[in-house]
Amino acid sequence: MTDFELHPQLAADTIFIMKLELCDLLLQKDANYPWLNLVPRVENAREIHTLSAEQQQQLLKEISFVSERFEKLTSAHKLNIANIGNMVPQMHIHIVARFEGDAAWPAPIWGANPRKPYEEDTLKTLVEELQEAFKA
Amino acid sequence: MTDFELHPQLAADTIFIMKLELCDLLLQKDANYPWLNLVPRVENAREIHTLSAEQQQQLLKEISFVSERFEKLTSAHKLNIANIGNMVPQMHIHIVARFEGDAAWPAPIWGANPRKPYEEDTLKTLVEELQEAFKA
Repeated sequence: MTDFELHPQLAADTIFIMKLELCDLLLQKDANYPWLNLVPRVENAREIHTLSAEQQQQLLKEISFVSERFEKLTSAHKLNIANIGNMVPQMHIHIVARFEGDAAWPAPIWGANPRKPYEEDTLKTLVEELQEAFKA
Repeated sequence: MTDFELHPQLAADTIFIMKLELCDLLLQKDANYPWLNLVPRVENAREIHTLSAEQQQQLLKEISFVSERFEKLTSAHKLNIANIGNMVPQMHIHIVARFEGDAAWPAPIWGANPRKPYEEDTLKTLVEELQEAFKA
């Protein structure tokens, strides 16, 4: 795990929120949807079933923890949780807060819309709210 | 759990493969991609974090078990695993075997292509292979 380095595409597309025990928690820079990524700090991780049993347990714990608080913070109608990774091979779990009538509803968000930049103030506030919401 | 009944949309779109401890394992009737669903037999389940800790554990176990064998059976390039549920509220986890150059590659499959019916013989063989592959 010492050789873990965030994939440059993820580094470019996201903002760091906080370190959890296994994963880095990141916010996708796309104002269309509140959209988080959990990235296990495990070198060459790609598929969930190739993680160790302990890592899988911890990943589940962090998905569940983040989901619960993110749903509460955003008042999401539905969460979309996915491990896709067709384009960026480094394992990253998407957790997206969805709302009836959002920019892609009811379709999944991936590839649905061009990214929409956050306004600077909105982003600053959201990052602070997320850091507060995910304090252990 | 006694009142669990498969959502009519899932019943219409899938073929039953087998019962696992927590979930029914189903095959989506779409020859574009080898595409499974895991459906926890839990009434009104919608989000992973609202399952009990035991159910979450068991779901993880079944996702991991199915992923490993499905990857082997299909020689998938990548698995796409997702809990979306924007249209069908009953919790169903997608596990899709993806190949470079498949009908939607590298985009996610949801909404990408109209369903393609299986030929009857192909479907029969695939169902048998799946039932064999997922024997405990």
